[in-house]
Amino acid sequence: MKFFFTVCAFVLFTTFSASGHEQVERWERFEVTLAGPQDGNPFADVTIGAEFTNGKEKVKVAGFYDGGGKYKIRFMPQQIGNWKYKTVSNSKILNGKTGSFTCIAPGKDNHGPVQVADTYHFKYADGKRYYPFGTTLYAWTHQPPALEEITLKTLANAPFNKVRMCVFPKYYSHVENEPPFYPFVKKSESKDAKGKIRFEWDVSRFEPAFFEHLEKRIDDLKKLGIEADVIIFHPYDKGRWGFDSLGKENDLKYIRYLTARLSSFRNVWWSIANEFDYVKTKPREDWDAYTKAVVNSDPYRHLCSIHNGSVYYDLWKPEFTHVSIQNGSTVEDFGRAILLKDVFFKPMIYDEVCYEGDLQQRWGHLSGEEMTEAFWQGVIAGTYVTHGETYSNVGDTIFWAKGGRLTGSSPARIGFLRKILEESPGPLELADPWKDHHTATTADSSYYLVYFGKKMQPEWTFNLPKKAGPKAGQKFKVELIDTWNMTIQTLPEIFETDEPVDYRIFDKERRAIRLPMKPYLALRITAYQ
Amino acid sequence: MKFFFTVCAFVLFTTFSASGHEQVERWERFEVTLAGPQDGNPFADVTIGAEFTNGKEKVKVAGFYDGGGKYKIRFMPQQIGNWKYKTVSNSKILNGKTGSFTCIAPGKDNHGPVQVADTYHFKYADGKRYYPFGTTLYAWTHQPPALEEITLKTLANAPFNKVRMCVFPKYYSHVENEPPFYPFVKKSESKDAKGKIRFEWDVSRFEPAFFEHLEKRIDDLKKLGIEADVIIFHPYDKGRWGFDSLGKENDLKYIRYLTARLSSFRNVWWSIANEFDYVKTKPREDWDAYTKAVVNSDPYRHLCSIHNGSVYYDLWKPEFTHVSIQNGSTVEDFGRAILLKDVFFKPMIYDEVCYEGDLQQRWGHLSGEEMTEAFWQGVIAGTYVTHGETYSNVGDTIFWAKGGRLTGSSPARIGFLRKILEESPGPLELADPWKDHHTATTADSSYYLVYFGKKMQPEWTFNLPKKAGPKAGQKFKVELIDTWNMTIQTLPEIFETDEPVDYRIFDKERRAIRLPMKPYLALRITAYQ
Repeated sequence: MKFFFTVCAFVLFTTFSASGHEQVERWERFEVTLAGPQDGNPFADVTIGAEFTNGKEKVKVAGFYDGGGKYKIRFMPQQIGNWKYKTVSNSKILNGKTGSFTCIAPGKDNHGPVQVADTYHFKYADGKRYYPFGTTLYAWTHQPPALEEITLKTLANAPFNKVRMCVFPKYYSHVENEPPFYPFVKKSESKDAKGKIRFEWDVSRFEPAFFEHLEKRIDDLKKLGIEADVIIFHPYDKGRWGFDSLGKENDLKYIRYLTARLSSFRNVWWSIANEFDYVKTKPREDWDAYTKAVVNSDPYRHLCSIHNGSVYYDLWKPEFTHVSIQNGSTVEDFGRAILLKDVFFKPMIYDEVCYEGDLQQRWGHLSGEEMTEAFWQGVIAGTYVTHGETYSNVGDTIFWAKGGRLTGSSPARIGFLRKILEESPGPLELADPWKDHHTATTADSSYYLVYFGKKMQPEWTFNLPKKAGPKAGQKFKVELIDTWNMTIQTLPEIFETDEPVDYRIFDKERRAIRLPMKPYLALRITAYQ
Repeated sequence: MKFFFTVCAFVLFTTFSASGHEQVERWERFEVTLAGPQDGNPFADVTIGAEFTNGKEKVKVAGFYDGGGKYKIRFMPQQIGNWKYKTVSNSKILNGKTGSFTCIAPGKDNHGPVQVADTYHFKYADGKRYYPFGTTLYAWTHQPPALEEITLKTLANAPFNKVRMCVFPKYYSHVENEPPFYPFVKKSESKDAKGKIRFEWDVSRFEPAFFEHLEKRIDDLKKLGIEADVIIFHPYDKGRWGFDSLGKENDLKYIRYLTARLSSFRNVWWSIANEFDYVKTKPREDWDAYTKAVVNSDPYRHLCSIHNGSVYYDLWKPEFTHVSIQNGSTVEDFGRAILLKDVFFKPMIYDEVCYEGDLQQRWGHLSGEEMTEAFWQGVIAGTYVTHGETYSNVGDTIFWAKGGRLTGSSPARIGFLRKILEESPGPLELADPWKDHHTATTADSSYYLVYFGKKMQPEWTFNLPKKAGPKAGQKFKVELIDTWNMTIQTLPEIFETDEPVDYRIFDKERRAIRLPMKPYLALRITAYQ
């Protein structure tokens, strides 16, 4: 069987006159729809793609069959100006179609896709900083429409700018309902002797409605300024639908169909798998092939990583733009988050660090304080942390599972931290990484964020690391942050740095700050002219 | 210039009668000495090597010029039986020489070279476990003979079975004396206007006496059962001799000469560099070439790693058999050592974690308690830690620098831990790695070592992780270990496991142990028939 989006390797250049002046924002989606053959199996039989050019750049994109005789080619222009395209297909009627559009400046809420910046951090394509504050909504797009709308309303008022979400439906405790859509055409549905539903799929035919729905939800997230961390495979099927055991060839076809549909969505990130090592149906060596297939099928090179259960993947491989790791212990205490960061030379997202909730399972019963602490531990170390909520109130949809409403106490505090980080002059790093796990700074040492964690102390002597520290005579103001009660109090003292003593810089008069006897305090220390 | 040990790529097989019956223990060193040309520059002009075979295996080894017209070829037989060899050289007089010897069973203290075992651990080639308990003696072989002998006496009574040591002399605080030997032939020595000695070397000619001395010291370590972790490059030259800035071509020649001389020493490990990132004279990309040169020149594939300053090398690369990392913070507290172990899938040696001593520098003033704690933190997490001592008593040679005597309080405690580990049924791993950082176990869950660290607590309820834990009804005896006072006390109670509760296994009667209010306690919990 020849698969239609594998054959897009063509090189052509034809000059042709502009046909119309459709306008598309930079980093928005331009879509061509063409009528083509419906006979046979168009998913398997027909290849479709196009080359887009603005005269300088050429971008080859795969198209896809969208059912009902419709073929689509989607493109995300990365440069302003006139673009034209020409299609290539093994179907005469679809081949050689040309067209053009004008890419205009992005609107005010369109900053482009998120990219790696400064080795360990992120920026939108337009240069605006992006600090990931994600949450987990594995199966939110597999719920009844009313619940999905509630989830979107929740997100509109929540502090999160990234959502981890599965393409395939999830079967797990607290997520047992049938989804409204399936990714493949259903051949049959029957009940076995025990009353369990048995599905038979035509895996050679995708179900466009499933993908259209997914796309609508990704666009809904985009409107809220939220990145969709799209999980391509996961282990939560357990024979219910069999979407975790399609076989390698079908997995690769699924990847090509998915990437043909979604690569033009600027807020998409690829998460090759959730808990890849718990997917018992796929050998470890195949994950390299899946990862390469995603990267090679994505002309825009969206952010890409793979999430682990208990064994990490080889995240140093160049296909992975950032590190997505499950390991709650990394952000439970000081001095840990930095250790993995030192290894990878990539942005670190601790994408699963247990969840705020009250489940019996230990991964699902962090207190709000613990979840908040995890975020501070990660951020202080120049890394990022992802939220999840697992309260099992009666009738609750459990946010982490199906979406719905947030009831935990950490989201407001996470929002408070996000605001502090977004007000900072740049991304944070530990100022003296192996010796002082409390003090983060920005590149120019004009700004420090000191976090004390659970431990209370009656006072803090003004002191900063000597390493890349300020010169003597620099004045600083200090703000006392209560990370739990979300207050920021400017202290009246202005401190002035002395010459370093061994590894630290003190105030000229060795002055100290009186601290309230509360846990979860932090200090924001800012250069003062 | 053609370099003599690069040309050893020959394939030949000649049957010839056994000439003599020299006997060499398995994993010991067989050496052929041949007389050859002395004119020109034999180091540069003459190639010499040999192929050894026992009929099944063929091993190609490089030889080397040892001065005075002597050429040597060294070989470490890895199989018992008859071996024969034939030389290959571009010098007619050295070419085609044949000989043989018999490899006999190893003596009782000869366990062969250390190799990786069970992914994260080590064994000698004969299967005996090897748990690295190293110390640091960077410049000990560059001292007056009397001091070197004192160092050896110290090591004979110390608990260390690995020594990190530099090939090249070291110039650093506390190590400022001229070494007795230099690796290259000295062309001139003069004093500049400031009285500083300026050396000029003929880097195309090695100084055999330097290497013979190094070899003698490596053999001295072997007699003591100590592995020599040989540091090939280091940054502690600073223009004094210029051995850190020979240029890449000369560096590679030096590697080939060194490996031709030392690969047959069974107790050699390769440390490509100490603090590679502080060697400012070599670009980062060259370290791959140096590493490959070492690995390709070593027919026995001795253990090989590279040690960092503040930036880690890409230690996942296949040339590195284990991870050698400097970062004291990894073993300062619970929950850290395991984090890097999860990444690399190789044995982890935290080869520099600051030193016990009283230097002003923070890397040189751990207390004995802190140094001991670092070892326990590492071992509990299934990793290994290396000692160093930096007390600066008047007239002291500072063990870490020049060798001499140990005065610290940690070595005895490290020896106590080594004994505990060597008495265990196998290497340790955290039983429940991300959730319980106190409890190590061996593969069969018949043995647990629980470490409490600095924190004191009045009692400990018998409990073990459910993960891979013992079945209900298993009896255990418990010994109370005082890791600082080096006592082991068997407790009278015999505990019996109940069915697991959530993630833990308790005693059937929920019994607890009364603990003395002391820090640094541990429990050894052993299955009891």
